[in-house]
Amino acid sequence: MIDPLLLIPGPTNIHSEVVRAMARPAISHRAEEFRKLFEDTIEKARKVFKTTHDIFLLTASGTGGVECAIVNTLSLGDKVIVPVYGEFSERGLEIARRIGANCVVEKMPLGEGISFEKAKEIIDANSDATAIFLVYNDTSPGVEIRELEKICRYAKSRNILTIVDAISIAGGDYLNIDEWGIDLCVIGTQKCLASPPGVTLITVSPDAWTTISKKKCPSFYFDLERYKKYSEKRETPFTPAIHLVYALNEGLSLILSEGVENWIKRHYRNRRALAVALEKIGFTEFVKEPFRSTTVISLNCPQGISPSVLVSRLYGKTRVLIARGLGELKEKIIRIGNMGITSLREILTLIASLSYVMLDYGVTVNVGEAIKAAREAYES
Amino acid sequence: MIDPLLLIPGPTNIHSEVVRAMARPAISHRAEEFRKLFEDTIEKARKVFKTTHDIFLLTASGTGGVECAIVNTLSLGDKVIVPVYGEFSERGLEIARRIGANCVVEKMPLGEGISFEKAKEIIDANSDATAIFLVYNDTSPGVEIRELEKICRYAKSRNILTIVDAISIAGGDYLNIDEWGIDLCVIGTQKCLASPPGVTLITVSPDAWTTISKKKCPSFYFDLERYKKYSEKRETPFTPAIHLVYALNEGLSLILSEGVENWIKRHYRNRRALAVALEKIGFTEFVKEPFRSTTVISLNCPQGISPSVLVSRLYGKTRVLIARGLGELKEKIIRIGNMGITSLREILTLIASLSYVMLDYGVTVNVGEAIKAAREAYES
Repeated sequence: MIDPLLLIPGPTNIHSEVVRAMARPAISHRAEEFRKLFEDTIEKARKVFKTTHDIFLLTASGTGGVECAIVNTLSLGDKVIVPVYGEFSERGLEIARRIGANCVVEKMPLGEGISFEKAKEIIDANSDATAIFLVYNDTSPGVEIRELEKICRYAKSRNILTIVDAISIAGGDYLNIDEWGIDLCVIGTQKCLASPPGVTLITVSPDAWTTISKKKCPSFYFDLERYKKYSEKRETPFTPAIHLVYALNEGLSLILSEGVENWIKRHYRNRRALAVALEKIGFTEFVKEPFRSTTVISLNCPQGISPSVLVSRLYGKTRVLIARGLGELKEKIIRIGNMGITSLREILTLIASLSYVMLDYGVTVNVGEAIKAAREAYES
Repeated sequence: MIDPLLLIPGPTNIHSEVVRAMARPAISHRAEEFRKLFEDTIEKARKVFKTTHDIFLLTASGTGGVECAIVNTLSLGDKVIVPVYGEFSERGLEIARRIGANCVVEKMPLGEGISFEKAKEIIDANSDATAIFLVYNDTSPGVEIRELEKICRYAKSRNILTIVDAISIAGGDYLNIDEWGIDLCVIGTQKCLASPPGVTLITVSPDAWTTISKKKCPSFYFDLERYKKYSEKRETPFTPAIHLVYALNEGLSLILSEGVENWIKRHYRNRRALAVALEKIGFTEFVKEPFRSTTVISLNCPQGISPSVLVSRLYGKTRVLIARGLGELKEKIIRIGNMGITSLREILTLIASLSYVMLDYGVTVNVGEAIKAAREAYES
């Protein structure tokens, strides 16, 4: 059977070279081969993310990385600001609550993120906070925090640590970790880096270390000081997912060879082309400006079309996989992932496939118009 | 360059079919393809481990699995019995301490494990304990707890939960989870299952659930109740290491096709052959009976031979990788991993390679004798 084409908010399609990189023998994680692989991978990640901060490699899903960032920096009673605008900000909140942090929650209306003005207000009212937790891009509604830089800089100016979940956007949009003042940044590999899931990167700033060194991490597995100690030997504290490191290394090479700036710009072009074409097909964007995500486009379906039925018909007929909404958005929206190696070709495939399936609903899409609009947007 | 031959206590060599299994496209972890893969993998694991208990798949190193087992069942002030006889029992102790458990530590002399008699004594003196944590096979000295069954049964009879780290031995020696009364069992994939590292299995008994349901797990990432909820949908709560699941599935198939009993018996035969041959070469077993591990054979080197120099010469000349000791045993012992797909051929390779390198030390090994002894032991 034909391979699925993943246009969901992760995991994403993987380049054949990355897939091939996994087909290698096991090596010892305490031998020179691994140390070379480890160092090279971290060096490449450092180039992609232009950061001088420490970068660690965790054998865990992205959420493990978020837990790691939070439990190393916050403890019982510490105040943390958590704006909530989707499932993934809820997760950060839940993690912070479990360790007994004092969470200042600001719940945003569905489909909206947080603006700098709003964030500033909350920071000013909570200047005794230890940290602020921000999801750069929450895939559940498809919301991106466009003013992340301003928010982080402001928080830093008030001596508040910035913990950023950039899992679903790192590589897909600009992310200047050091310049923006991001103390802990969690980076997913199976999203815009187009690598397989299972390992997660985390960056740690010098300011973060000041806080971390004063805490006793409740988790042994996620203890960053232990990662640091082993990192000095170019090793991980526990047996890492070696084959996924092979793959990540190759994935990062692909990004560096396309050029980080080009890689990101492709995500922008894709997003523009997708948005206009899908509007021509009859869908409308769910998220209002300025919170529309570059990497997840969420759309209201035309009247009478159930997102879950549409998703399953599309997949059944063409093996193109898109996502429906999550939680209360389950039957309200569809979500298109625009991540990693997604290119013009996949966009055209999606346009053609969606048009094909819309015929089931008696809707004849003007595909020519959709493609023309996509072309204008893509080449502009 | 020739691939390394791993005869270390994990990771181990991987069968080419298992390697190939990873070279597949990414799929969605929320799609039917993954649910089928997940169900099939759990079913196979259930057959290999002959258990009716729940089995969960964590995207984490083995230590993540141990942390998961401990933080779901113990909380502040709970008494836990921790016999200590190597680095991995130390890890369990450290994890339990971080959550504020009241740890009853029984430190055993180096190279010894815990006997049933000794364990019974401690259990009797601490009948108010919530749990006992036991490393079935601690690879750091090469110690196996031969009376695990009796200890677990006795602990259960006293209403004490049994948490077993079986990471480095599950698949390599008998492990009757249900029959022996193991409440939480942590199973590594990169050891005797001969799969790649990065995912870990954990089993949970009905008695364990009774305790877990009364606790609020401090970790979101390792929260077993969340795993259970998703498991009912044949999914994992967080994006799993999909490619490693492909591989594990294939690895489990290999075990089932060889037969679980045969797979284990091969480990026994290997151990016998290795031990006698290495004694002929001039090494002596470090661990005394009855604690000698089936899967890690630790040996004192002949006078004048430094373990680390020997390991590095052997690897440099032949790409056969064995391990030296850890911690205070660093310059005292070498350790041979006997795990997974290791067969007679690898044993013969090791005998020949070690004999070759011993010539560096002016030692002429009677290789014929060593092979003859190995043959007798292997075929007995």
